[in-house]
Amino acid sequence: MTDNSPRTDTVRPLRENTVDLWDFEVDVVVAGYGIAGVCAAIEAARAGAKVLILERTGGWGGAAALAGGFVYLGGGTALQRALGFDDTPENMATFLTAALGPGVDAAKIADYCAGSVEHYDWLVDCGVPFKEEFWGEPGWEPPHDEGLMYSGGENAAPFLDIAKPAPRGHVPQLADKKIGERSGGYMLMKPLADTVAELGVAVEYDTRIRRLIVDADDRVVGLLATRFGKPITVRAARGVVLATGSFAYDTEMIDRYTPQLSGRPGAAIEEHDGIGIRLAQALGAELAHMDASEVAIFGDPQMMARGILVNGRGQRYIAEDTYPGRIGQATLLRQENQAFLILDERSLEEALATESSTPFFRFPPKWVAETVAELEAEMGLPEQALQTTVATYNRHAANGSDPLLGKKPEWVRPIEGSLAGFDLRGFTAGFTLGGLRTDLDSRVLHVSGEPIPGLFAAGRCTSGLCAGGYVSGASLGDGSFYGRRAGRAAAAGTY
Amino acid sequence: MTDNSPRTDTVRPLRENTVDLWDFEVDVVVAGYGIAGVCAAIEAARAGAKVLILERTGGWGGAAALAGGFVYLGGGTALQRALGFDDTPENMATFLTAALGPGVDAAKIADYCAGSVEHYDWLVDCGVPFKEEFWGEPGWEPPHDEGLMYSGGENAAPFLDIAKPAPRGHVPQLADKKIGERSGGYMLMKPLADTVAELGVAVEYDTRIRRLIVDADDRVVGLLATRFGKPITVRAARGVVLATGSFAYDTEMIDRYTPQLSGRPGAAIEEHDGIGIRLAQALGAELAHMDASEVAIFGDPQMMARGILVNGRGQRYIAEDTYPGRIGQATLLRQENQAFLILDERSLEEALATESSTPFFRFPPKWVAETVAELEAEMGLPEQALQTTVATYNRHAANGSDPLLGKKPEWVRPIEGSLAGFDLRGFTAGFTLGGLRTDLDSRVLHVSGEPIPGLFAAGRCTSGLCAGGYVSGASLGDGSFYGRRAGRAAAAGTY
Repeated sequence: MTDNSPRTDTVRPLRENTVDLWDFEVDVVVAGYGIAGVCAAIEAARAGAKVLILERTGGWGGAAALAGGFVYLGGGTALQRALGFDDTPENMATFLTAALGPGVDAAKIADYCAGSVEHYDWLVDCGVPFKEEFWGEPGWEPPHDEGLMYSGGENAAPFLDIAKPAPRGHVPQLADKKIGERSGGYMLMKPLADTVAELGVAVEYDTRIRRLIVDADDRVVGLLATRFGKPITVRAARGVVLATGSFAYDTEMIDRYTPQLSGRPGAAIEEHDGIGIRLAQALGAELAHMDASEVAIFGDPQMMARGILVNGRGQRYIAEDTYPGRIGQATLLRQENQAFLILDERSLEEALATESSTPFFRFPPKWVAETVAELEAEMGLPEQALQTTVATYNRHAANGSDPLLGKKPEWVRPIEGSLAGFDLRGFTAGFTLGGLRTDLDSRVLHVSGEPIPGLFAAGRCTSGLCAGGYVSGASLGDGSFYGRRAGRAAAAGTY
Repeated sequence: MTDNSPRTDTVRPLRENTVDLWDFEVDVVVAGYGIAGVCAAIEAARAGAKVLILERTGGWGGAAALAGGFVYLGGGTALQRALGFDDTPENMATFLTAALGPGVDAAKIADYCAGSVEHYDWLVDCGVPFKEEFWGEPGWEPPHDEGLMYSGGENAAPFLDIAKPAPRGHVPQLADKKIGERSGGYMLMKPLADTVAELGVAVEYDTRIRRLIVDADDRVVGLLATRFGKPITVRAARGVVLATGSFAYDTEMIDRYTPQLSGRPGAAIEEHDGIGIRLAQALGAELAHMDASEVAIFGDPQMMARGILVNGRGQRYIAEDTYPGRIGQATLLRQENQAFLILDERSLEEALATESSTPFFRFPPKWVAETVAELEAEMGLPEQALQTTVATYNRHAANGSDPLLGKKPEWVRPIEGSLAGFDLRGFTAGFTLGGLRTDLDSRVLHVSGEPIPGLFAAGRCTSGLCAGGYVSGASLGDGSFYGRRAGRAAAAGTY
């Protein structure tokens, strides 16, 4: 590049005719080497395209390699069948429509569920290992190397009456799981990155995308990036794939779109700055569900299922045996981020004796008390606020039922004797689920409804399956599924 | 126009050099003749610009003329002072930041509060009448022609402890108010429309905007519209002002951004199809708070303040004496749109005996019962769910307090004797608050952060004061305030 180098401090597209020199000329360029990018690169390369991946950090992985590794798949995958679970694409779609809505992209849900079995086989074929073992306990992740788990509240109220429960959280196997070291997400990414290497895909690390390059007809034909401050131009004859992740770490976008997550990004990486979204917006791209967010709560599911969760008024608000991410959303988005967990001594001891996957959450209770009245007073709740909650819970628990919220009988038992109160106020964090609106071929849609020629996207820079709700595995799921689509569509060179 | 007429079925911008003939050539064109448009036109004309308003319907008014007419103003307006209320811009900003957040545009809040006194005087100067009388009762609107009322929960929990309560809902006077006929909003629009006419501003009715026209440098220089299917081109030498209202009636945008409002548009007009937002998006405009929504609940505030509101689990969730729009948001967005209102016979009779402004809401109770247990059973709530709620409420009400939610002592009294239960489930509707991101001069901001040259916007096609919360009068307030700014900035011709 000469002194006539283009500006790199704007997200506005750069005109092709202003580029003097192309540093790279390929068929397909993929921005971001996380789950969506790796799948796009594999499929594009297999379709015969010359592919280049640009990655901002010094290595592959993205947020995916740090994630628990759930891939949400179903409809009767080989793993589901081997473990005796019946599922159909229609049943899966019914559940996802209820759990991820309102406002889901119905065509995308149907498409994803219909293609889910094949997608599982594809991952296995790429070398991603899944152990044929089911983990049926509440938890954030399996404690060992089990390959299948409920990861969205499918078997809890209210969903267990809406669709036939089936576990769909598929977790790549870690041969030698060491907590805090590597994750299921690493074991998802590793064989896929190996596949990319085998296919001869080029990768440029430490390379940050800055602007899309467009021709005179506004077709996307390349990317301007920088490496250590130096501009790099990439020409992509067939297409550009954006796979740059969420905007969880862009504080301005968070303030504008998802202010409830302000100051509490989680399960994302600092590189998730929304750049892919902004570059496409500058070309008139449509967005969707920019307020949606995954929300984790730092509570032990084994403890939560055995106790009661109450809000800042001492009221129960969710079946405590459901998917903990659903508890996180309910707490942050609908209970002003106020949550307390109450257990009696016997239930707490039982929870602590289980093989929980999350010793991280085993902090001591903030309050201990001999009676509910005493606990209520110590917690600063109005008199009778907690006492009536516990009395009502116990009255029905004595019959093994929870008519208020539908917690399953196996977790319902009167709360008696000494009590522990855990303060979970403010203990939530999450990442954004909104982004570019794409079609089933991962083409980025203009606000006119038409695709933007030459531009594709997948992963958390797009609005995927989730409109508001979340299930663990949805991000690695739609990221990998629509990453593949993006790679194939870009390589086709017909869009 | 010839057979070479440009397409009118796309929101993509049209290049100036493709326009053969200009049907109108003016300095400033304003799209939409509601509150933002009328104020933009007045200020642009007063600044010496030749102005044309394009209005889709056959007359002026927009949603504003059908609205109750609240204009949210404060900081010590002449009306506030005349009625003995102290207020400062800082106090107003403290309240609005708490009530409209999280994620408010702090600069816009401060700017609006600082300019609020002058804006009130400007409206009066334009002929908008405000009667020097205060209405202090809970209600959606004043029952007669009172000019000032609390319209955002300023004097209710939790805000009464955050900022000094001051009423800021300024309502234009109807000399002869007849319910269901004309509204305060009509009396806001009428003198402003008269002012527009006096200023000689041209208006083209039945004219629907279709595309922005841009020059070779992407500066906005005009609008393509249609009238009865025929294309009309308007050249605007200084600027285009978008004032086309919300997207409450565009079902696709609702599904993508605000699915909670799907099927329940309210206080909007069918012309609110988001066109202004989409035209600017096609130029790379940034959005903000697209999920935010005003939510009305069809409940009588006089009855609500005297009763208790419970959710689908029989739990109280909000101070019943607050701004009813806040109750609407809490119900739809955080209680799954489930609400029941419970009153005893004495309180119901008291409420019915008041001068309520909303006889519309006086439908009969769905249930009547002699005891709480009986009501609870009839409502289908789990045993003890409602009984414990009432018992806890009564226990503290006997001392005149509501430690759970902070309802003011004047509305707190134990619930005794015969009971009425009103079913408010699903009784909510609303309009969207998100839209184009604009600066303090109402310039539409590109996703790069820079203004889009020649393009201005105000009213509900922009993200104004509200990030998520709402107060009555915020829309006519920021629409009129930033409509003026848009008119002045466009007329200046320097942007």
